[in-house]
Amino acid sequence: MRKKVNESASKLRIIPLGGLEQIGMNITAFEYEDSIVVVDCGLSFPADDMLGIDLVIPDITYLKDNISKVKGFVITHGHEDHIGALPYVMKEINVPIYATRLTMGIIENKFREHSLMGATKRKVVKFGHSVNLGAFRIEFIKTNHSIVDAAALAIYSPAGIVVHTGDFKVDYTPVFGDAIDLQRFAEIGKKGVLALMCDSTNAERPGFTQSERTVGKTFDTLFTEHKDTRIIIATFASNVDRVQQIINSAYKFGRKVVVEGRSMVNIIETASSLGCLNIPDRTLIDVEQLRNFPDEKTVIITTGSQGESMAALSRMAGDIHKKISIGPRDTVIFSSNPIPGNEKAVTNVINELLKKGADVIFQDVHVSGHACQEEIKLIYSLVHPKYAIPVHGEYKHLKAHAKIAQSLGIPKENTFILHSGDVLELNQEGARVGGRVPVGTVLVDGLGVGDVGNIVLRDRQHLAEDGILIVVLALDGYSDQLVSGPDIVSRGFVYVRESDELMDEARVIVDEAIHSCLSRGISDWGKLKGGIKDALGEFVWKKTKRRPMILPIIMEV
Amino acid sequence: MRKKVNESASKLRIIPLGGLEQIGMNITAFEYEDSIVVVDCGLSFPADDMLGIDLVIPDITYLKDNISKVKGFVITHGHEDHIGALPYVMKEINVPIYATRLTMGIIENKFREHSLMGATKRKVVKFGHSVNLGAFRIEFIKTNHSIVDAAALAIYSPAGIVVHTGDFKVDYTPVFGDAIDLQRFAEIGKKGVLALMCDSTNAERPGFTQSERTVGKTFDTLFTEHKDTRIIIATFASNVDRVQQIINSAYKFGRKVVVEGRSMVNIIETASSLGCLNIPDRTLIDVEQLRNFPDEKTVIITTGSQGESMAALSRMAGDIHKKISIGPRDTVIFSSNPIPGNEKAVTNVINELLKKGADVIFQDVHVSGHACQEEIKLIYSLVHPKYAIPVHGEYKHLKAHAKIAQSLGIPKENTFILHSGDVLELNQEGARVGGRVPVGTVLVDGLGVGDVGNIVLRDRQHLAEDGILIVVLALDGYSDQLVSGPDIVSRGFVYVRESDELMDEARVIVDEAIHSCLSRGISDWGKLKGGIKDALGEFVWKKTKRRPMILPIIMEV
Repeated sequence: MRKKVNESASKLRIIPLGGLEQIGMNITAFEYEDSIVVVDCGLSFPADDMLGIDLVIPDITYLKDNISKVKGFVITHGHEDHIGALPYVMKEINVPIYATRLTMGIIENKFREHSLMGATKRKVVKFGHSVNLGAFRIEFIKTNHSIVDAAALAIYSPAGIVVHTGDFKVDYTPVFGDAIDLQRFAEIGKKGVLALMCDSTNAERPGFTQSERTVGKTFDTLFTEHKDTRIIIATFASNVDRVQQIINSAYKFGRKVVVEGRSMVNIIETASSLGCLNIPDRTLIDVEQLRNFPDEKTVIITTGSQGESMAALSRMAGDIHKKISIGPRDTVIFSSNPIPGNEKAVTNVINELLKKGADVIFQDVHVSGHACQEEIKLIYSLVHPKYAIPVHGEYKHLKAHAKIAQSLGIPKENTFILHSGDVLELNQEGARVGGRVPVGTVLVDGLGVGDVGNIVLRDRQHLAEDGILIVVLALDGYSDQLVSGPDIVSRGFVYVRESDELMDEARVIVDEAIHSCLSRGISDWGKLKGGIKDALGEFVWKKTKRRPMILPIIMEV
Repeated sequence: MRKKVNESASKLRIIPLGGLEQIGMNITAFEYEDSIVVVDCGLSFPADDMLGIDLVIPDITYLKDNISKVKGFVITHGHEDHIGALPYVMKEINVPIYATRLTMGIIENKFREHSLMGATKRKVVKFGHSVNLGAFRIEFIKTNHSIVDAAALAIYSPAGIVVHTGDFKVDYTPVFGDAIDLQRFAEIGKKGVLALMCDSTNAERPGFTQSERTVGKTFDTLFTEHKDTRIIIATFASNVDRVQQIINSAYKFGRKVVVEGRSMVNIIETASSLGCLNIPDRTLIDVEQLRNFPDEKTVIITTGSQGESMAALSRMAGDIHKKISIGPRDTVIFSSNPIPGNEKAVTNVINELLKKGADVIFQDVHVSGHACQEEIKLIYSLVHPKYAIPVHGEYKHLKAHAKIAQSLGIPKENTFILHSGDVLELNQEGARVGGRVPVGTVLVDGLGVGDVGNIVLRDRQHLAEDGILIVVLALDGYSDQLVSGPDIVSRGFVYVRESDELMDEARVIVDEAIHSCLSRGISDWGKLKGGIKDALGEFVWKKTKRRPMILPIIMEV
């Protein structure tokens, strides 16, 4: 008996609270006895059927229920899918946050917007340094990614070491700072690693991801080829290295740089104030100054590479940007491939730009921020883990990653694809998924966090498809006689002038339904409403093959 | 003066009534003096913001206004974007339809569903034959495409010959029937062609489109590699040649074939009854018979290659297909690339299939139904037109096509990218866009054609984003005193139990607004409603940063 308790006590528990079921919502709890450390705290963006929703954040019930154990959040890097939910989560559980310099800078930007700067504990950690959090020690290891200051984590627990790569690639010639600290991965591997949690994003892609620096060369070529026009370059705000290279080329070619789009301005300010971005003096100019320079002496770096409808480039293309208009003297470069799902929006923006006479160029960017198959294999070969836990990707990516791990000799039974809420218990003796914890999503709509649930979404879907018919009537409180109405008001159903006849007929149908109920002595409002719904619903379906929401409202006078 | 009239009378007018502004809605009027002939009559599918809309069809006001001139429709091939609007248009203007055998078979399928078989005049035309329609003679020329019986049209008018390619590719070894009649293109070219209207879909792609037959070989390879599992193949229902090749491979490997998905069943029945599809005896079985055969002896051909939510494959993946469930003994082959915009849906289906243990294969299909750059050049070289009018594609495709035409020596001023409604007037002396005709879209929602317009769509969008707040109150008709309410009912706004307090406060706000109006003697219902809207709208925005639709309803008792 004693032994069993010890056995159970000596296990590390790894619990993804988001991830596979909610892509983007990267948040994983590591639990050992009375200590919990959480890695990352990302958000995801609403699926197409989440009408009106702005953001989706993780349900952290498990952390709240075990708040006394939670020692802090350690953050791998400053992208939305790893930090975006922090402001919301901090309002619920206020625990310290640990991250590297730029990552923390971006987090603090968010906290300022949410007035959380005074209320939270934050500590910047240097690469190679560690923080002690309860039973855990967490070491930050330098990696490369499409943003500066990305870290892998070595999570030391009494049950063994877990290496979490975060989002990474191997870049021997990064644009800013050092290459990934492969030696440290090897050293830790030498000590013996219990489990490796490694980025799966590009697990389907063979070979190596190219160095970000290769993109810089293509900018130089494009600048040479288009030396007579203004150049507008759209890329991800979060890709600080890409922005650096655009600035480098602009400076080399004697062009001034304008930065457009709120998120782009924010990140460039943060990165340059922290010394993660080198901007030569007098290179940046304000958008208002554009008119003081000839077109061929300016570059505009902008958001909107994914065709996002409100981003700066889309507004330029749609002629609703207040300060920049597109014409034949513009070369627009898309410096990022469309994320699946955005292709149509991107194409629409391209068509609009072409119609305005601009030259549109798709920079053939095969450079990603994520490791391809050979890099994944390299990390496995350095770390030599006992267990493989593919992370960061859709099911098909995790599955492809698992195959790679197995090709390197990790037994199939030592490879775990974890679903959100799965509890993986592991130590040197063994590993198994033992139980589940509550997980889920919380929807953010405007200021409301969690006040829009499935019923509201279903209603929105229903309203969006077929609109609403509202039936109002007034009954005498004593006699149950109809004293006013029924009136029918519609929104989002049909254009009413076109269908006055339909509405007239509908009113007759409702009238009959009400009188039929009242004459049978049915004055229970629930039943009366049911009678109206059924009669009107059937009539409308027969006439139009549509099923608008029908909402009877009865007033007592 | 006399001369001018003659000049104007001797011009051919080419008028796209859809196309560039409504991709998919291919419909072009050719007008010469008192004759109009219309080429194709396609529909497009609703854009993401057309909530609840099923189909989008062309506004044919111009044809209705000139109905006495309209001699008929000539149809190039049987795809939705070329025939889909015919049933709706025929209910408005009943003129004869001319098409090749399979094209007409598919049109008649539609007409049967719409009970239009008795009411329409239809004539099947053989390749090489012509029909005389007023001032025009239209010759049908054999081409290749992803559906059998696709035709190009030579449109002979007193002003000159226009060659319209329809959707085409050059396939020297087609799966069914003959190769494109290049000789005839050359012969007509020799006569002298005024204008070429040529397919632009793949104008951005260099080289030649491969023969559809190359796909057949890869099926044989896949059948060899997966001889121990059931094989499920998803492709477009309309790709009859692809279906033929799957059936060929299935027969060769001794497998029975099940066809799933309504559109797939329809088209296979039509094509095989017309002899455009060869199905060996006892190859097709019913889905119910699947259980009588071992998995490795069956193939399922299914719709859903684009991840369409209600298609057969998506239902299988989502475990809601009544008769087929997916497991580890299934190999699922996607035999068509995702159309831009569908990538995410396709990926979701793949993930679901993988989770069920199925093997998922993406057949690397670089075979398209449309001509690439070298084929476009070939047609230009055979036809040698005076004017180039790129058709069928988004702006960027038409633009790329125009560049090709110019590279072949067509002067820039002889190249026309036409917008919907543009009237291109041309003859041997010259060509210019001279004026516009009314064009537009008509939305189809259920049985309603055109009863949903911009106002209704805007309401649906509003309802979808933030829901609705309905305020009802009853006023005494004589005294203008409030006798009941105000009551507030919400749908799609917030989950009400969570926000009872919010709704209580809202009621107070509305109450104050009403009393403030009534006490100031304002009893005009419009103003009263405005007062309620303003007060409640401001309150809700402040509290939630949302703007639900606010609908005040006043009853008089």
